[in-house]
Amino acid sequence: MSSTERSPSPPLTNRTAEVRRDAIFDRWVLISPARARRPSDFKSHSPASGTPNPKPSCAFCAGREGECAPEIFRVPPSSSADWKIRVIENLYPALRRDAEPPDPSDGVAAAGTGRCAVTGFGFHDVVIETPDHSVHLPDLSPEEVGEVLLAYKQRILQLACLGSIKYVQVFKNYGASAGASMAHSHSQIMGLPLVPPLASSRLDSTKKFYDMTGKCSLCEVRSEDILVCDTVHYFAIVPFAASYPFEVWIVPRDHTAHFHEIDHEKAVDLGGLLKLVLQKLSKQLNDPPYNFMIQTAPFDLSTSCTPYTHWFLQILPHLNVIGGFEIGTGCFINPVFPEDAAKVLREVDCSK
Amino acid sequence: MSSTERSPSPPLTNRTAEVRRDAIFDRWVLISPARARRPSDFKSHSPASGTPNPKPSCAFCAGREGECAPEIFRVPPSSSADWKIRVIENLYPALRRDAEPPDPSDGVAAAGTGRCAVTGFGFHDVVIETPDHSVHLPDLSPEEVGEVLLAYKQRILQLACLGSIKYVQVFKNYGASAGASMAHSHSQIMGLPLVPPLASSRLDSTKKFYDMTGKCSLCEVRSEDILVCDTVHYFAIVPFAASYPFEVWIVPRDHTAHFHEIDHEKAVDLGGLLKLVLQKLSKQLNDPPYNFMIQTAPFDLSTSCTPYTHWFLQILPHLNVIGGFEIGTGCFINPVFPEDAAKVLREVDCSK
Repeated sequence: MSSTERSPSPPLTNRTAEVRRDAIFDRWVLISPARARRPSDFKSHSPASGTPNPKPSCAFCAGREGECAPEIFRVPPSSSADWKIRVIENLYPALRRDAEPPDPSDGVAAAGTGRCAVTGFGFHDVVIETPDHSVHLPDLSPEEVGEVLLAYKQRILQLACLGSIKYVQVFKNYGASAGASMAHSHSQIMGLPLVPPLASSRLDSTKKFYDMTGKCSLCEVRSEDILVCDTVHYFAIVPFAASYPFEVWIVPRDHTAHFHEIDHEKAVDLGGLLKLVLQKLSKQLNDPPYNFMIQTAPFDLSTSCTPYTHWFLQILPHLNVIGGFEIGTGCFINPVFPEDAAKVLREVDCSK
Repeated sequence: MSSTERSPSPPLTNRTAEVRRDAIFDRWVLISPARARRPSDFKSHSPASGTPNPKPSCAFCAGREGECAPEIFRVPPSSSADWKIRVIENLYPALRRDAEPPDPSDGVAAAGTGRCAVTGFGFHDVVIETPDHSVHLPDLSPEEVGEVLLAYKQRILQLACLGSIKYVQVFKNYGASAGASMAHSHSQIMGLPLVPPLASSRLDSTKKFYDMTGKCSLCEVRSEDILVCDTVHYFAIVPFAASYPFEVWIVPRDHTAHFHEIDHEKAVDLGGLLKLVLQKLSKQLNDPPYNFMIQTAPFDLSTSCTPYTHWFLQILPHLNVIGGFEIGTGCFINPVFPEDAAKVLREVDCSK
């Protein structure tokens, strides 16, 4: 939210601003509806479709496999040309799989000098979700989205075997302003030699809640007023302290620490729900650019942590600009009350 | 950095990727030059000048004071029309000065329910840096920039007297994509009823360095290879673990916890250096949108913390997109080695 933005119409609710604390990320959000449009008027000013690389074909398309970095595996797992999903190396990786894994003592020794650096070891892969340039993730069937999720799982399990990888971040950037440089539907998987700060701080803050209540904070969030939609195994909510307008979390009903524990039945169930939530966001918000991230646990999780560790999938449509306040403080400003955003999304009908 | 971005030319240096740890924010940065252009080729694709509200006049201009929210003070402090700086209330504040300050026990009690919310109390002010719509901050003289800095100080001191405000974030958003919705040169001041997460984590991580070395991490960073330029009282660097390409920090040479301890002489000195750094960034990077933030300390700082608490001014040009990896992990990807960025900026000549 730009911090001096004008308000063309009054908000849907008459509530005054609140400061809410997110119990998962342990951060503060200023919910500030007086600064915004009506929740139902929120639209993306820059719809994502077709903006980056609007070519009819690209190196991710069927038939142009030779232009890509090496393939790791494909689905189905044959060498025939009729693939549905390909997992490949990123041609321009942010981390290098051929570098030496860092020695944990390197970082400790260097920390005292004020200049701490280790080698940029890690894995940076791309999941091509379809061979067809014109198809996007929510165009796939629930089964097909489920197969993409199972491809994530398969790659995560490979990285888990290496020992040198501590955490895997699966994410999707959709639309140029959300970080996508290829229009062809894809997501990314990064295997990291360290546990990143937000994964650590999630563990710390869910532990704090568990110590106070004896409960898992994500098992406790299921509430009618923030529910968007649900299935047998998952529910989608706008979290109570959403950092971004129309942020959605898809949470497994079963208390599970790691995404990669998912099985085929649950993957198809999640595939259907992810498809529906992406369709609702696209229809309501004018095909906004978005990111989604699978927020899972480090590979090496002690059993004492499992009672408060619960993975989820976080979806962030890009509707506002992050400015100096958010970057400086780590607090966010959300112009839409999460209950209002959930109501709006609940009522979007994607059946026609 | 979009995570699949193409590399049209090789990087200036042949160094391979590094993972660096920032000793101030305690976060990891992937320095990944293979993904980027040459450091000297970096330019903003969307220069900021004139993009938002390119009107010849606006409510922040001299003569239209009546269209703004109430004035808090002006410089010089007379009621005459010839003001140079005005500090006013934000017409669409993210926090409300008329709300009840939260009781600290509210948050503690609510935390156990998983729904923690307090009233949105706080101050959100705007500093109009010049009466002239066509003048931007680096167009002002060092003395005039110094007066803007002293206006920040004056407002911070007023907020410090209230008792209900724990921390003040001063920031500037320049350009629409950096969060500015008004083109007229301005910055913002937010008085917060809580210490925000990044201010707390800075204290924690500089304490860790102090406990290990007996030194202040910012007093220790002064190094030739990352220096951009300096003055009697301040030096400007590209920090060793910069999260963003061409990020610059301006640091006081004297170990000082709070920005608002600045005096007139230092304000003019800082004014000249800030002007020069902004000119260098604008000339080298094609007038990029940027944010700057004054990273100071909470009002209520115990004397045991002062040996490791050192304020600085952080400037972030917007040259890349933050995507799902950065949002998900809290790690950043910087495609330019900080030493290379510093060298490029050092060599920009703004004297002609």
